[in-house]
Amino acid sequence: MSIVLFSAAAATTKLCPLFPTYSKISPCHHRPILRNLSLKSRTQLLCSNSLKSEIYTNDKFSKVGALSTGPIQPAHLIQVATIAAQTGAQVVMDAVNKPRNITYKGLTDLVTETDKMSEAAILEVVKKNFEDHLILGEEGGVIGEVASDYLWCIDPLDGTTNFAHGYPSFAVSVGVLYRGKPTAATVVEFVGGPMCWNTRIFTATAGGGAFCNGQRIQVSATDQVERSLLVTGFGYEHDEAWATNIELFKEFTDVSRGVRRLGAAAVDMCHVALGIVEAYWEYRLKPWDMAAGVLIVEEAGGTVSLMDGGKFSVFDRSVLVSNGVLHEKLLERIGPATEELKSKGIDFSLWYKPEDYRTDF
Amino acid sequence: MSIVLFSAAAATTKLCPLFPTYSKISPCHHRPILRNLSLKSRTQLLCSNSLKSEIYTNDKFSKVGALSTGPIQPAHLIQVATIAAQTGAQVVMDAVNKPRNITYKGLTDLVTETDKMSEAAILEVVKKNFEDHLILGEEGGVIGEVASDYLWCIDPLDGTTNFAHGYPSFAVSVGVLYRGKPTAATVVEFVGGPMCWNTRIFTATAGGGAFCNGQRIQVSATDQVERSLLVTGFGYEHDEAWATNIELFKEFTDVSRGVRRLGAAAVDMCHVALGIVEAYWEYRLKPWDMAAGVLIVEEAGGTVSLMDGGKFSVFDRSVLVSNGVLHEKLLERIGPATEELKSKGIDFSLWYKPEDYRTDF
Repeated sequence: MSIVLFSAAAATTKLCPLFPTYSKISPCHHRPILRNLSLKSRTQLLCSNSLKSEIYTNDKFSKVGALSTGPIQPAHLIQVATIAAQTGAQVVMDAVNKPRNITYKGLTDLVTETDKMSEAAILEVVKKNFEDHLILGEEGGVIGEVASDYLWCIDPLDGTTNFAHGYPSFAVSVGVLYRGKPTAATVVEFVGGPMCWNTRIFTATAGGGAFCNGQRIQVSATDQVERSLLVTGFGYEHDEAWATNIELFKEFTDVSRGVRRLGAAAVDMCHVALGIVEAYWEYRLKPWDMAAGVLIVEEAGGTVSLMDGGKFSVFDRSVLVSNGVLHEKLLERIGPATEELKSKGIDFSLWYKPEDYRTDF
Repeated sequence: MSIVLFSAAAATTKLCPLFPTYSKISPCHHRPILRNLSLKSRTQLLCSNSLKSEIYTNDKFSKVGALSTGPIQPAHLIQVATIAAQTGAQVVMDAVNKPRNITYKGLTDLVTETDKMSEAAILEVVKKNFEDHLILGEEGGVIGEVASDYLWCIDPLDGTTNFAHGYPSFAVSVGVLYRGKPTAATVVEFVGGPMCWNTRIFTATAGGGAFCNGQRIQVSATDQVERSLLVTGFGYEHDEAWATNIELFKEFTDVSRGVRRLGAAAVDMCHVALGIVEAYWEYRLKPWDMAAGVLIVEEAGGTVSLMDGGKFSVFDRSVLVSNGVLHEKLLERIGPATEELKSKGIDFSLWYKPEDYRTDF
């Protein structure tokens, strides 16, 4: 039987002109290229505009991405999202390289300050380019024009605990919604660790495919749970949903090749898109944790739903992303566990949706 | 209160002449330096000989490292261990960069082949330098002279599942025992992932300190479980010890900042030594999984014991490594859980110890 287990490195039929060849070198070395170009040239260089997605479709689950990027060209939108995320990432990289031999109070301050400074840097880029867009930031709440069709969901530092400890990975995540649905996404992942920090950049636009360092990526084709590598997360609140997920962790550790626990939602989703893990799920994520990641997974050919199998929006309180092929098999166990939580009255209503923001769902 | 939470980057008072300055660049770029030097020059350059360890000592737990490197100079031993591990790592890096769009059978072959080729490459280096030493390899079993005081414990590819999926991290681990106790250790960790693979190298000698990319490293000083980041592993056999550890995973996820699950024992231990996590534990590891990692942790100032708190040897079936300060607090829960397993008759006797190999314990 022929099964593609890990296809990321091979999914390179379409290359971004910005990163035309496969390279082991960090995207960092491309940054000066971006910086030295005019805005117009950057737009022409960016990758998603002319590409058509060749994604696997699992017809049983609705697509979560927007039908288009609306009146703004995909290349323009992803260009601003990417520069915004990279600007935030530069703030984070500066903090990563600071000596950490500091007091606990000092460390807490470093984390809070990095979070805020990264968000401020991202906001500045977004506002400069799209002054009438609505912005939902982890730190700053809702800013801007509620009548806008565009909502920017910004996580200036996803995986705060990892960042504080110097444990990879963590990320800067910028996801743009059009009428409530993800339409452009950039995640800058910090990989490696002390002595070898590096970054890797994931991008996607609605219908335009998903990329890592400018190279087209694709979910894995693994179709058996017992051959899958999975990943999940546990939130800060240790309630019934938390306990249910510990149980799911146990069950899937038992039947799969393993369940990883990394601690950064946006990164975990990008890893599904990259084909190095088959699926990821978590309860109680916020829109800024999910907006970019879900689009990157979907554009890499994956499937996104709620953990009960229902139709997902970024304002929901659970998410399951997978390579698509395995989605239903995973739901056979994750679905009933989630239904049980619902039957106990656990709140799964929408949250963090800006009042009066117009959506298509 | 002043608490050092993450001290790795700051623990740089003593520098290895091979990597004299802090650098974000991979150790890879140093390899040509090593290769172009004569064996004698390499030995003079290597770091551990002239350094004295300044480690935190937790007097309640015996040291697991040997008192010395025996009649062989530490610099000579670590030099051969490092070249051996790097030679194996080169085999693994070549495999990492191969296209993975292959059949499942092909992937299994790639994993098996890489494991074997890496071990063969390592063995060649060891045998060429110390033809009378005993070698215990994951693939090849026991080779060499049983009368030797030196036993090389070799894991040519630690974290096979991660390697197969392209998920970081995995490693090549070479640990040398002198009369049964760890005396020299090198772990080459593969970090990053597709589009940005890189390596990071950990070394230690008995009494000579621990290093990452040639820079002295130190465990964290975090003294509260609730401020700690932990990591554990689950073996392939899903028995009572496995179930106990799932329970421990749950309990420590509840009371700490999080329990990571990465999937490569040698790497997890190096992360404790690097100060980015506070502790790691696992049941049923093999000598080749542990021989290098435990010495690196101890030489970075950490503590090593069995999971019941007892005195550890690499032939034991459980290990708890920590930053030392937290060791007893962690044992308050891990200890009784392990005692309970023992009371049920679960086998914790020594294993994989070459018959007639002379030890000091």
